[in-house]
Amino acid sequence: MRRPIITLTTDFGHSDHFAGTMKGVILGICPQAELVDIAHEITPFEIPEAGFAIYQAYGYFPPRTIHVVVVDPGVGTARRPLLAEAAGQYFVAPDNGVLSMIFTREKHKVRSVTAEQFFLKDVSRTFHGRDVFAPVAAHLAAGIAPSRLGRIISDYLRSTFGTPTRTGKRVWTGNILKIDRFGNLITNLHIDEFAAVRHRPFELVVGPSRVAHLAQTYGECGFGGLFLVVGSTGYLEVAMNQASAAKAIGCAVGTQVDLTIY
Amino acid sequence: MRRPIITLTTDFGHSDHFAGTMKGVILGICPQAELVDIAHEITPFEIPEAGFAIYQAYGYFPPRTIHVVVVDPGVGTARRPLLAEAAGQYFVAPDNGVLSMIFTREKHKVRSVTAEQFFLKDVSRTFHGRDVFAPVAAHLAAGIAPSRLGRIISDYLRSTFGTPTRTGKRVWTGNILKIDRFGNLITNLHIDEFAAVRHRPFELVVGPSRVAHLAQTYGECGFGGLFLVVGSTGYLEVAMNQASAAKAIGCAVGTQVDLTIY
Amino acid sequence: MRRPIITLTTDFGHSDHFAGTMKGVILGICPQAELVDIAHEITPFEIPEAGFAIYQAYGYFPPRTIHVVVVDPGVGTARRPLLAEAAGQYFVAPDNGVLSMIFTREKHKVRSVTAEQFFLKDVSRTFHGRDVFAPVAAHLAAGIAPSRLGRIISDYLRSTFGTPTRTGKRVWTGNILKIDRFGNLITNLHIDEFAAVRHRPFELVVGPSRVAHLAQTYGECGFGGLFLVVGSTGYLEVAMNQASAAKAIGCAVGTQVDLTIY
Repeated sequence: MRRPIITLTTDFGHSDHFAGTMKGVILGICPQAELVDIAHEITPFEIPEAGFAIYQAYGYFPPRTIHVVVVDPGVGTARRPLLAEAAGQYFVAPDNGVLSMIFTREKHKVRSVTAEQFFLKDVSRTFHGRDVFAPVAAHLAAGIAPSRLGRIISDYLRSTFGTPTRTGKRVWTGNILKIDRFGNLITNLHIDEFAAVRHRPFELVVGPSRVAHLAQTYGECGFGGLFLVVGSTGYLEVAMNQASAAKAIGCAVGTQVDLTIY
Repeated sequence: MRRPIITLTTDFGHSDHFAGTMKGVILGICPQAELVDIAHEITPFEIPEAGFAIYQAYGYFPPRTIHVVVVDPGVGTARRPLLAEAAGQYFVAPDNGVLSMIFTREKHKVRSVTAEQFFLKDVSRTFHGRDVFAPVAAHLAAGIAPSRLGRIISDYLRSTFGTPTRTGKRVWTGNILKIDRFGNLITNLHIDEFAAVRHRPFELVVGPSRVAHLAQTYGECGFGGLFLVVGSTGYLEVAMNQASAAKAIGCAVGTQVDLTIY
Repeated sequence: MRRPIITLTTDFGHSDHFAGTMKGVILGICPQAELVDIAHEITPFEIPEAGFAIYQAYGYFPPRTIHVVVVDPGVGTARRPLLAEAAGQYFVAPDNGVLSMIFTREKHKVRSVTAEQFFLKDVSRTFHGRDVFAPVAAHLAAGIAPSRLGRIISDYLRSTFGTPTRTGKRVWTGNILKIDRFGNLITNLHIDEFAAVRHRPFELVVGPSRVAHLAQTYGECGFGGLFLVVGSTGYLEVAMNQASAAKAIGCAVGTQVDLTIY
């Protein structure tokens, strides 16, 4: 029989006990859980980066996987814990917009988790990953019905970091969602919306740099030049062959990009 | 049936094979073991930091969990491998004080592990995580009785990094146990001992800075000011809202803190 | 019954979803797989470093373990995916030399993996870890015979980064394979080939520094001096007691080392 899968996406890093302690809580409640780390080195407090990470990963997990996302600058304040159901999977996260990209793509149902009997007994003000999100995910994995965790709500937070806007006749303005380990700049411009870059001249401006070439692979171009490539989840990336585009351009997450298609 | 849980806390990082190799050794001896990483990015050789990490985590794991802690600057010298039993759990670690905080809080029994038949055949001088600690933990998980691993001892090393001292009529001096990923300074001053900060004026001096406000949550204060907060394990932390207190103050692990309660 | 073990060695880091997504793919195909991380912080594109990591680890895993190694600067180009069998284990990796040290030590059989029915349906140009290597490993773990994955080949790439060369009557020239987390410089000079350093005078030159002492343990020497030590896999390492030899010398992976034995 398939073990229930629980994934973790956090900004907790690997020098603290945080992620490990969450796993202890989960295994205490649901010993048969299969734990999978998505990413623990999300930039601290960067909700869009965490949201983009889980957005790229969830589609590759089996049905009924439970994804726990804890990037939570508002821990201890009034923000609510959520349980979302989408694409046949579950998402447990704070109500801070981190699931926005999933809400945009998938039909979904969202609950405000209020059933405190499924939290740890003494809920701290500072570590809801351990005290709220981990036990809720574990009880869900152990068979508790979502309806027992809280009521369906519609006023959860949705953010727009995943969506570019049209800012001219031929111009769309987006931003950088993520700089990956290799220095590739992943924009929020998706190839399905901007398929024209495949066959028409274009110019993408990011900081002081202009990019006008679409490559098929990272390895195809020579060393040194910037190019666009369609990333593994369909988003346009600004890249260099075996070098860091981020360092070459000098930009950060959130930097504006302007795409003109001629 | 519950799989035996083995946790790992090390300073091995994630660019080397060390932690992975330990897991291979464990799974070879005890295939049903459930492996959980607590932290592998402990600052190299920082025994107090590792001791504090496992101290914060162990209480959230199920009974009979086996915790392996390998921060081991003395590897290959005469320091002994230990097996400690405390709080219904097991701790496998070098005899270098790394379990001191657990020994202070919990009743415990400590053995010097001498049963070399449970080590790998050729014990290196440089990697006892693989050759000694991993196989000992795995044999324990597979059902070997602690008494077969070595005799009970009482002369194991205990360090005092977890304990503040009184240095004036109203003054206690402690130190920073840990700087977490968010730049919060975690002191060794526990709220249970210093509950007076909740209702009386106080001043905590750390480096050039003075802190006189106790907040309920990280998010409660405005940006920019330093405050104290009770961390998720009860220790007082010096924090800033969504910013790094460590950078603002410019201090490191081990820095002295002086708390005056008026 | 023993669960099939799949290990992962990549340069994907922990701030991206890459490694987690590979695990989702694997668990979707082979739910009973036991996943073990060897290292995800391999320096981006550093094939020798990844090759050395898996070379040090595989011998400590049980028979039939499947090792997936994805450091893949040529992703999306014509380089082939390989399945190698050696030492009773399996290795799934791009054909870029990353398995060379294993090929040098072990009898082996190598296949070019061409059976696209075992890949994900839409293979991207940029993430074969997810689309090719993870599903191939998972199908193998689920019981697909190696012979169904592709034909045996002999023209796979072999690199020589693991092998020193003789450059004088008493001089051998090698290089630094890896700088570990503690700043130790791991050379490609193995004690089995250079056992003479145990009983004869020698000098190892690396950058501006000369090393002439072989220590038994990291902790044996006083602070501050450089020494050689036999590392946990038998390679000579340049080390300092509780300090970084790499910082002291100022060298990088690939730096030449010259060993003279008198």
